[in-house]
Amino acid sequence: MFLSAIGALFFGFQTSPAGTPVSSSDSLWLWIAIGVGLLALVAAAVLAKIVLAGDTGTAEMQAISNAIREGAEAFLARQYKTIGILAVVIAIVVFCGYNFSPRTHDVAIKTVIAFLVGAICSGLAGFTGMYVSIRANIRTASAARTSLNKALQAALRGGAVTGLVVVALSLLGVGALFFFFGGLERPQQVPYELVGFGFGASLVALFAQLGGGIYTKAADVGADLVGKVEAGIPEDDPRNPAVIADLVGDNVGDCAGRGADIFESTAAENVGAMILGAALYPVFGIKGILFPLIVHAINLVASIIGVAIVKTNDTEDPMSALNRGFYVTSALALGGFAYAVHAMLNGPGVQWTWLLGCGIVGMVTAFLFVWITQYYTESKYRPVQSIAEASLTGPATNIISGIAVGMETPALPVIVISAALLLSYYFGVRGLGDVAGISNYAKGIYGTAIATMGMLSCAAYILAMDTFGPITDNAGGIIEMSNQPDSVRDKTDKLDSAGNTTKALTKGYAIGSASLAAFLLFSAYLEEIKTLVTLKVSAAGSAGFMPAGWSFTNINLAEIPVFVGALLGAMLTYLFSSLAIKAVGRTAQMVVKDVRDQFRENPGIMAGTSKPDYARCVSIVTGAALKEMVLPGILAVGLPVAVGLIFRNFSASYGSGSVALAGAASLVPTINGIPVNLGGASAVAGLLMVGTISGVLLAMLMNNGGGAWDNAKKWIETGQYGGKKSDAHKAAVVGDTVGDPFKDTAGPSLHVLIKLLATITLVLAPLFL
Amino acid sequence: MFLSAIGALFFGFQTSPAGTPVSSSDSLWLWIAIGVGLLALVAAAVLAKIVLAGDTGTAEMQAISNAIREGAEAFLARQYKTIGILAVVIAIVVFCGYNFSPRTHDVAIKTVIAFLVGAICSGLAGFTGMYVSIRANIRTASAARTSLNKALQAALRGGAVTGLVVVALSLLGVGALFFFFGGLERPQQVPYELVGFGFGASLVALFAQLGGGIYTKAADVGADLVGKVEAGIPEDDPRNPAVIADLVGDNVGDCAGRGADIFESTAAENVGAMILGAALYPVFGIKGILFPLIVHAINLVASIIGVAIVKTNDTEDPMSALNRGFYVTSALALGGFAYAVHAMLNGPGVQWTWLLGCGIVGMVTAFLFVWITQYYTESKYRPVQSIAEASLTGPATNIISGIAVGMETPALPVIVISAALLLSYYFGVRGLGDVAGISNYAKGIYGTAIATMGMLSCAAYILAMDTFGPITDNAGGIIEMSNQPDSVRDKTDKLDSAGNTTKALTKGYAIGSASLAAFLLFSAYLEEIKTLVTLKVSAAGSAGFMPAGWSFTNINLAEIPVFVGALLGAMLTYLFSSLAIKAVGRTAQMVVKDVRDQFRENPGIMAGTSKPDYARCVSIVTGAALKEMVLPGILAVGLPVAVGLIFRNFSASYGSGSVALAGAASLVPTINGIPVNLGGASAVAGLLMVGTISGVLLAMLMNNGGGAWDNAKKWIETGQYGGKKSDAHKAAVVGDTVGDPFKDTAGPSLHVLIKLLATITLVLAPLFL
Repeated sequence: MFLSAIGALFFGFQTSPAGTPVSSSDSLWLWIAIGVGLLALVAAAVLAKIVLAGDTGTAEMQAISNAIREGAEAFLARQYKTIGILAVVIAIVVFCGYNFSPRTHDVAIKTVIAFLVGAICSGLAGFTGMYVSIRANIRTASAARTSLNKALQAALRGGAVTGLVVVALSLLGVGALFFFFGGLERPQQVPYELVGFGFGASLVALFAQLGGGIYTKAADVGADLVGKVEAGIPEDDPRNPAVIADLVGDNVGDCAGRGADIFESTAAENVGAMILGAALYPVFGIKGILFPLIVHAINLVASIIGVAIVKTNDTEDPMSALNRGFYVTSALALGGFAYAVHAMLNGPGVQWTWLLGCGIVGMVTAFLFVWITQYYTESKYRPVQSIAEASLTGPATNIISGIAVGMETPALPVIVISAALLLSYYFGVRGLGDVAGISNYAKGIYGTAIATMGMLSCAAYILAMDTFGPITDNAGGIIEMSNQPDSVRDKTDKLDSAGNTTKALTKGYAIGSASLAAFLLFSAYLEEIKTLVTLKVSAAGSAGFMPAGWSFTNINLAEIPVFVGALLGAMLTYLFSSLAIKAVGRTAQMVVKDVRDQFRENPGIMAGTSKPDYARCVSIVTGAALKEMVLPGILAVGLPVAVGLIFRNFSASYGSGSVALAGAASLVPTINGIPVNLGGASAVAGLLMVGTISGVLLAMLMNNGGGAWDNAKKWIETGQYGGKKSDAHKAAVVGDTVGDPFKDTAGPSLHVLIKLLATITLVLAPLFL
Repeated sequence: MFLSAIGALFFGFQTSPAGTPVSSSDSLWLWIAIGVGLLALVAAAVLAKIVLAGDTGTAEMQAISNAIREGAEAFLARQYKTIGILAVVIAIVVFCGYNFSPRTHDVAIKTVIAFLVGAICSGLAGFTGMYVSIRANIRTASAARTSLNKALQAALRGGAVTGLVVVALSLLGVGALFFFFGGLERPQQVPYELVGFGFGASLVALFAQLGGGIYTKAADVGADLVGKVEAGIPEDDPRNPAVIADLVGDNVGDCAGRGADIFESTAAENVGAMILGAALYPVFGIKGILFPLIVHAINLVASIIGVAIVKTNDTEDPMSALNRGFYVTSALALGGFAYAVHAMLNGPGVQWTWLLGCGIVGMVTAFLFVWITQYYTESKYRPVQSIAEASLTGPATNIISGIAVGMETPALPVIVISAALLLSYYFGVRGLGDVAGISNYAKGIYGTAIATMGMLSCAAYILAMDTFGPITDNAGGIIEMSNQPDSVRDKTDKLDSAGNTTKALTKGYAIGSASLAAFLLFSAYLEEIKTLVTLKVSAAGSAGFMPAGWSFTNINLAEIPVFVGALLGAMLTYLFSSLAIKAVGRTAQMVVKDVRDQFRENPGIMAGTSKPDYARCVSIVTGAALKEMVLPGILAVGLPVAVGLIFRNFSASYGSGSVALAGAASLVPTINGIPVNLGGASAVAGLLMVGTISGVLLAMLMNNGGGAWDNAKKWIETGQYGGKKSDAHKAAVVGDTVGDPFKDTAGPSLHVLIKLLATITLVLAPLFL
């Protein structure tokens, strides 16, 4: 019994599926998930229709909004063209690589299809979300002329379109591929054939976030440098030729970029969790594989209701209304999660309450991350106040203080993540404690996977709140540029302030989910390597099976190739950040140059007698940002591949030769007499895991440091330490400018890098053996 | 034969020593090493005498020099008192911990003795070096009035006293303890009993570097903020009450701090290499254990000659003269190293040329690190120029550009370290390739150990160049404050500029040797755990021996406790840096306050009619810096201990339960029927290794970023981009100020932290099992 369970767990791929066969009642879960996904798209369409039916304000407002829309659409069109070319190249590389690997031709084709579907879905989600956002901005601005509630609802519903489309497309893409690849017949094998979907999503997300992040901050910094500093005109002044580029940036960076980021998170988490579910097939049957899809179906339903109930009045802080929606969504998601765990994760020896505990750990982790982010970035707490106070002695002490705060920020989140991993692992071991034939390791890892799903179970609502940010930001800009009365401005200012908070919180949430999901994706990678080695050994004719208990769960840092991979992984995060930050600087210089040129060529601009050429500036930033995103992107894709290929070929000299077969302790163990070189796979694993740790910490430093600088400046502007135009304020402006590329370019790009590392290593694993 | 060799390698500790017995000709090497160490102390005394015989200049110069001397000595006295109390507390903890561990009472006493000897030797080395430096400064200043050559020689010889005393005391301390603990009788066991020496050295180094680093930058930043910015008086102006504190800071930070840092490097490297030598006892006999001591004997002889030949004329760049001395030292060290490898590292099957290759890899690595540091911090190359150019658009772009440069800096060093590890491992495997009964892993690791020794084989000369820095800096300050003619100032300016370069280079060298030595120390830690497990299993009555081939060489990042340890290790480096930077800020505020108070209480100071109370300011900085060093210090010591103890007690739930004995793949394997919980030891190893990687990268970012900002400012001062007092210069001053606590407090403290982590885990390993 014990041995047959082991056999089923580890070698199911070669033999016929073991455990319970897929019954029609079990496959029903797939149709439920897909059905909810389709309904969510309908809901998104309805929301979009409601938002687009809103009033579009004065002709002046429309002119500004149209300029933003055209700029954003032009950027997205050119960006997708660049990404499309890169995606086709990578698809060819993946296809060729698979054909030279232990994988079959059939899997090569499926992986490439999944990759392209993932890339297209990600692009589609980004495009749809932005299509609505750049139209919701003017409706929000217009609604603000009558009622705060209407404006709030317009912005949140516009944002919800992004949230719903992102999560629904991720669910539908994975669900449909699972079905068409024959998941109902071969449920244990098909999850491995979906890894391309996650990689496609990551690749688009990397370039969307990098390109958008470079665009938004280059336009922002460039407009400020030449407008506020040189020409002495206020922010969002229509005489500044870069002002439209700045507003476009909010959309392509925050909206399209973060949408792609969360799309990638849910896609990678879906696929990774399905692979782990496949490893537990003997316990849960296909229900364990479909569970992540059902979690996102619940996520969609809960988020739709959460968005629908949000309303406010003209005196309330908009943040309270948004929080109410979040609490409702969370409560519904928790209830749904509990039902799904009870109904799906059952079997002999399973104690579902412990598994629900894992999900609750994930949800609590999400709350704590959001709370910690608030502590470090809101002006009522010590960190931001210490930066504001340090501004009294000039920009140098402001910067030193901000960096010190940034470096302090990883401490609490790391403790939370550590506790979440330890607890959910322990709960997983307890919840599956009476199941025979599965290692504690597999049980515990599944516990961490459930925690990750719990953390992402409100993703659609969170994303709606996030996209709320750029919509209200744009609405504020439109109101400012079209000279509306102060009372209207007050309303959009309130919304804008809430939007800044939601944007900061989402970053905390995104990095939290990335770090928890990282462990899930490592485990999926280890499963994939195990499967590949099994294939290789059986292809070499070794009786078609592996030694009992063999499993690739060993990334030994004391092996030189792993340690070198780890060093290079950590280094990658620094170099990548450096390139991203420098790209912002160079692109901003081009903005500065164009604005100076326009002022010189057309003196009527400053006099207010003629309009600047907004489109020219938009076009320059677009071209530069797209050019600049390529080098860091190629570094991120190329380094793991290079490390895998180099150590695949050279690691034989570095294996602990005298250790025969000891788990996978040796880099070149002999399995059934066949030498299997694990050097490449191990070095890549070291790169992946330590690169992730380093990336998570650096991203926290930059996101929270940047947010704290921003709010220290805003706090001084409320009249503290001399208020606006004081020396302290000037110092704080320096800190805010330094923080811009940190928090809006390098930091968010690092989130995506972390997940790209996970999916690229998962997809290209066959090349490393 | 094979089995007996394995037995001798792995179980020699329990049985009688195998291999060749210690002949008197072999033990001669110990006496040679100790003899050279004693001779080096004599040479240091002679050098000190020559320097102290120099002219001490005018009464005005003497008054300034005396004030510096008193301040530095007062700081050191109070600092050593604080460190002494902490050391006694830790000694008691170590003693108690050992008595509850697999180690015997006898080893507990020896470890505590070694710890205290290490701490005292480190303190003594720091004190002696500084005793001479704070007297060499005025001799250098006085000599500059007549000849550049005399001034250069006075400063370098003063620095050489530190270099020689540091390396000689490290050599003598380890050598004497080895002898008194019975190393000639039990050569394989005694190296493990010396680990306390390295820990004692690290502990003193941590507090010396932290306290000194906080002192020096708090005084510097505080004096600048209140002097240059508020009162508008130039740097080093005698009316500034903080000016003496600033000059004292150069000595206690750069001189005493870096001396303790390098003392720790050589001590930890000596002990770690001796432990690996003990593992190779069947091959080399005691010669393999004594080899590291002989390398440092060669280091001392080569460095004495190198220092002796340095001379210059009045027109040459002093850096060229210093480099000539370095080349001579390197050539001599290489020759001596080759002889020592040939004479000592031989045995059946050994190919010594490959082992020499390992040493050469280490030396080349040192050169490359120095070169890369120059590239990133000298004004003739792109990085510094890009920062200077970015200063044109204000402080924000200066800071962004500097951080981007800092984040770029780890890339090349990481590639160099990776190549050095891979090459020296491979050479080690080749050089010991025909030796039977030893794993490739042990062979390769010994290769990396030889590379580390090669890298440190010029340490005494490097340290002489480093201490040259604060001496010339002080000499410049004395000349400035005592109103000497411009021609004299020109000479000290030249020396000061060379001193800035040597200080930057030494930091590159220190971080390079720390990262290479880190792998050596990991391996020593793994050996120690193996030995402890063997002791524990044999104490439990399991026939007194271990399964063949069992070895703790597995730090599996995929295990949750290891991964959590890794996360916490990386987090530690960020939090520690944050605390160090904030400590500088708080202490600087106290300087600012005192100077403001003095100006207000005594208006005669600014009028030039009465002298400020330098001593009061010195005393305030002293008290504050010593208070501030405690928290980051305790964090560094406490976190690894806490992780080890927590996972020792709770990891049973996290082990991969189903894997029986697979190397050490399981956290709780059963060895001969006895469960051995490796959870604590593994989690600490994860913390150590990933903490080291993160610390090395962060330190490079801060050291090189800080150096680049400093030199960008200096480059602008040569007339670029508007020169002094231009807006670009003001922006560059902001960058320089930000860089100060980076490059002189947090960065160097991280070097020490990395090595402290290695030695503390080595010493406290018995507590984690």
